[in-house]
Amino acid sequence: MPKSELPREELLESFQNEFPDRDYEIEIICPEFTSICPKTGQPDFGTVTITYVPGQLCVELKSLKTYLQSFRNEGIFYENVTNTILDELVAKLQPRYMTLLAEFSTRGGIVTNVTATYFDEAGTE
Amino acid sequence: MPKSELPREELLESFQNEFPDRDYEIEIICPEFTSICPKTGQPDFGTVTITYVPGQLCVELKSLKTYLQSFRNEGIFYENVTNTILDELVAKLQPRYMTLLAEFSTRGGIVTNVTATYFDEAGTE
Amino acid sequence: MPKSELPREELLESFQNEFPDRDYEIEIICPEFTSICPKTGQPDFGTVTITYVPGQLCVELKSLKTYLQSFRNEGIFYENVTNTILDELVAKLQPRYMTLLAEFSTRGGIVTNVTATYFDEAGTE
Amino acid sequence: MPKSELPREELLESFQNEFPDRDYEIEIICPEFTSICPKTGQPDFGTVTITYVPGQLCVELKSLKTYLQSFRNEGIFYENVTNTILDELVAKLQPRYMTLLAEFSTRGGIVTNVTATYFDEAGTE
Amino acid sequence: MPKSELPREELLESFQNEFPDRDYEIEIICPEFTSICPKTGQPDFGTVTITYVPGQLCVELKSLKTYLQSFRNEGIFYENVTNTILDELVAKLQPRYMTLLAEFSTRGGIVTNVTATYFDEAGTE
Amino acid sequence: MPKSELPREELLESFQNEFPDRDYEIEIICPEFTSICPKTGQPDFGTVTITYVPGQLCVELKSLKTYLQSFRNEGIFYENVTNTILDELVAKLQPRYMTLLAEFSTRGGIVTNVTATYFDEAGTE
Amino acid sequence: MPKSELPREELLESFQNEFPDRDYEIEIICPEFTSICPKTGQPDFGTVTITYVPGQLCVELKSLKTYLQSFRNEGIFYENVTNTILDELVAKLQPRYMTLLAEFSTRGGIVTNVTATYFDEAGTE
Amino acid sequence: MPKSELPREELLESFQNEFPDRDYEIEIICPEFTSICPKTGQPDFGTVTITYVPGQLCVELKSLKTYLQSFRNEGIFYENVTNTILDELVAKLQPRYMTLLAEFSTRGGIVTNVTATYFDEAGTE
Amino acid sequence: MPKSELPREELLESFQNEFPDRDYEIEIICPEFTSICPKTGQPDFGTVTITYVPGQLCVELKSLKTYLQSFRNEGIFYENVTNTILDELVAKLQPRYMTLLAEFSTRGGIVTNVTATYFDEAGTE
Amino acid sequence: MPKSELPREELLESFQNEFPDRDYEIEIICPEFTSICPKTGQPDFGTVTITYVPGQLCVELKSLKTYLQSFRNEGIFYENVTNTILDELVAKLQPRYMTLLAEFSTRGGIVTNVTATYFDEAGTE
Repeated sequence: MPKSELPREELLESFQNEFPDRDYEIEIICPEFTSICPKTGQPDFGTVTITYVPGQLCVELKSLKTYLQSFRNEGIFYENVTNTILDELVAKLQPRYMTLLAEFSTRGGIVTNVTATYFDEAGTE
Repeated sequence: MPKSELPREELLESFQNEFPDRDYEIEIICPEFTSICPKTGQPDFGTVTITYVPGQLCVELKSLKTYLQSFRNEGIFYENVTNTILDELVAKLQPRYMTLLAEFSTRGGIVTNVTATYFDEAGTE
Repeated sequence: MPKSELPREELLESFQNEFPDRDYEIEIICPEFTSICPKTGQPDFGTVTITYVPGQLCVELKSLKTYLQSFRNEGIFYENVTNTILDELVAKLQPRYMTLLAEFSTRGGIVTNVTATYFDEAGTE
Repeated sequence: MPKSELPREELLESFQNEFPDRDYEIEIICPEFTSICPKTGQPDFGTVTITYVPGQLCVELKSLKTYLQSFRNEGIFYENVTNTILDELVAKLQPRYMTLLAEFSTRGGIVTNVTATYFDEAGTE
Repeated sequence: MPKSELPREELLESFQNEFPDRDYEIEIICPEFTSICPKTGQPDFGTVTITYVPGQLCVELKSLKTYLQSFRNEGIFYENVTNTILDELVAKLQPRYMTLLAEFSTRGGIVTNVTATYFDEAGTE
Repeated sequence: MPKSELPREELLESFQNEFPDRDYEIEIICPEFTSICPKTGQPDFGTVTITYVPGQLCVELKSLKTYLQSFRNEGIFYENVTNTILDELVAKLQPRYMTLLAEFSTRGGIVTNVTATYFDEAGTE
Repeated sequence: MPKSELPREELLESFQNEFPDRDYEIEIICPEFTSICPKTGQPDFGTVTITYVPGQLCVELKSLKTYLQSFRNEGIFYENVTNTILDELVAKLQPRYMTLLAEFSTRGGIVTNVTATYFDEAGTE
Repeated sequence: MPKSELPREELLESFQNEFPDRDYEIEIICPEFTSICPKTGQPDFGTVTITYVPGQLCVELKSLKTYLQSFRNEGIFYENVTNTILDELVAKLQPRYMTLLAEFSTRGGIVTNVTATYFDEAGTE
Repeated sequence: MPKSELPREELLESFQNEFPDRDYEIEIICPEFTSICPKTGQPDFGTVTITYVPGQLCVELKSLKTYLQSFRNEGIFYENVTNTILDELVAKLQPRYMTLLAEFSTRGGIVTNVTATYFDEAGTE
Repeated sequence: MPKSELPREELLESFQNEFPDRDYEIEIICPEFTSICPKTGQPDFGTVTITYVPGQLCVELKSLKTYLQSFRNEGIFYENVTNTILDELVAKLQPRYMTLLAEFSTRGGIVTNVTATYFDEAGTE
């Protein structure tokens, strides 16, 4: 996997929402997320689910895939994975609403799920 | 599959709702939807679920099937599939409420679901 | 199956609700409903679910079974099955609330579910 | 199974709720309920689910089991099973909230579920 | 398993929440909980699910695991397990919201689930 | 549903097997079978599964559907349904192997499945 | 439930097998079996599955149901339930083959399944 | 979807098996198969599962996908789909063993699965 | 949980098999097994399934439960758990056949199942 | 994740089998396998299941985990993953029997499973 030269948030691409007058919802489920635990150096695995109501922009799926793959060899905690992806997608897309659910697989007999949500207070929904 | 001569939206047929005084809900699940990705030329597969409260008209199921089959060899993005089917059904049926859910199968390890909703603001619900 | 001499709605029997002061809910699931499609003459199969809050009367289960069997060789559309059963049960039982869900099995690759609801506007709930 | 000498409602025992200042919920699922149909003399089988917010008292589980077993050879209709168990538990425990769901197995191709609820109008929740 | 010298509540460790301005939810599922029934001396087994919106602190997962293991040979009733874990986590973390669900496996044909919730009345949510 | 004038076994139609030199297996699952219990007059419901290795002939699916529908209002016991369908299909198709599984839905709390098999002793398999 | 005057094994009735020249299999699943543990006096619950190849006789289902209900208030161990039902059915039906599987629900965190089989050594299979 | 200029069987590509001395099994599951019913002109949908023990050659997955897509607008019966794909894969790959399972979705309330198998009689297994 | 004074293998009790002339199978599933990893001191959790054909003796279930609980605070590896339980049960019961399956829950993202089997070479089966 | 200095096959460690006289089976399921597709540079995800009958040696689980993680950033085809892991485990452990199943997640709408098996021809099983 050739390492991207770009800073991570520049990997994301968007396209114009053709139905900006309607509040509709897009749910994107990515069951192949993996990163590295910064404490143990062990890989973590999980499913990332993004649900959003687009404003003027929709996320381009192939670029989203590349963006999520950029965490593959990065050391980052569960809580930070969730909030960081949400922040970077919101900055790029300026959606009316977005929720990020990250479900991590069993570690030490314990499953952890983290959910963070953004509302565009100026917008609808 | 003989190609229809009609423009797509003329494929839809309706019949009179015999219980127009009651708000009741009809859910139609079509797990055999397929279209073509305009970017890659590859076929997409998905399930289209239509839920609506009829006004004066109900959709005729056989014509709906033919209408959905008309996307079989058409190049169209996920977001546009969802919004276009919703718009054309609303134009034909003038329902009190309609929601369109399109669930597309895995591409590049990613599942995408799109949901759009129409409310008849003049009507009940 | 000896054909009943009675008109269909007279097949339904009721008994006194012994707890009329409490709003409680009875759900009855009948997965063995079958009728005939009036267009094609082919049998339709489905599950009928009745949920209601009784007033003074509860439906007697054996008579309900006979009532639903009376549709076995009758030609009737999905939407009409749902609304007709609801209307005839409401007329017989005068419940505080009743909802009728009819889920029909796949036809032409399409599943159809119809839900209709009655509220007793004079009553509670 | 030695027949209890006690009237049925005296079989129930309680213990002091150690956290009476907090509204918390206890759900008890008993999938081994059986009684007798008073019409046919045939055994009925079902699952009884009790959900409650305790006041000063919690139900003791072993006594609850004995109490539910006392219906084993009793002839009683579905609707009455549900309302009777709710009434007797409420009388004994004086909970802030209690709901009783009884799900009975298939008879004549028909499944029946009955749900009844009690709110302590003087109390919280 | 070397017995910890520490009192149980000192086993819990926390770390700084890096996103204290956002109300986000962390769900932690521990399907390997076991304690001892104080009445019978028999082991109980269950799943403990903790859901919380962090304030300034998040719970450190490895210390949580050690904390939950400290109940392994302790005699304690279901209702007390639930309320005690909730109280000790709230004291340590001062979350904005926390709910504790304990689901215990079948005993005498009966399943028991207990749910208790804490709201920080001064805080958001 | 217009009653067929034909004797039941003449409803079955076949077509030429284009790959008669290879032993391959065709499984046909019909979850919408219904007949009448000759003892009680009540409808029975079930799933009929036909598995066969064709000889010179394959069964035409639409005719099979019509054939199975001819049992709709016929009084016949479970064991006889299974053996009769097997005998009539074998007579029509002369397969190398055929097995007939009929799974009937719950009656009196009891599920019944009947399986009968035919081998062409002169043929392969 | 009126107690039968007959000894238990006389409750079973049979009818003539109309296809005695073919070895076909009948599977009967009874998920509503209950008896009493002779040690504790507590009720046991389970599923009894009978699979057999009939000889000259098939078991009549309604009599089988009555026969199985006769264990309702009888104190008997798991292993004896299984072997006794097998022995009494074999004595009555003289099948070519019969297997009896009894699956008992959780007691003390332990599930027990017992399987016993009879072959008619003089017969086929 | 640009129509391929090549005859269908030339779409398949292979690569060298690097472990030809070991009999190992490759299972390929393609749940997105669609073709056209030659009788009705309606689309059919199904899952094609290929299981084989390679000889000197393995099938290249991307070319297999293109090959299966070439049936998208072709009129062909179920039995022929199965046997044709098996024949063309065997001709291309000369495997030691190959089985082809095609599971087609419900038509007229009937599901059909077809399985065909090839053994290289000169080879191992 | 009062620690037993007895050596572990003396905890097992047996009773006479009343059907010693028939080879029948008893399957006992214990989903609440726990022991301690000797390397890490962490608790392990698993399901132990015992399947056997009894000789002259059957295992008494309550004593089996006590026996399995005796591993609760013992440090022992997966492979040794499985083989030790098998050996001690065989020594006590002298069965005709016994298989022991131990399924351990996820550790480090890895699930481990161990199966060991004993045949009485002098006996039947 | 610090890159190991060791060649991959030296990462595997073993320990002595304490029950070498018995043929027993160990199944190890690793649902968190990931490698890189050498053609596209995209990550692949899968589940690796190892089933073996040990000879004198068992695989140490922590070293197995490290060994499987060493494929994380390696470009390798499905068929080679399977055969390579099998070969390296056999070389290290000299088991009596070992089978390796690798199940890879959907790519281009296609799932691929590869199974390879080793038998020690000199040994038992």
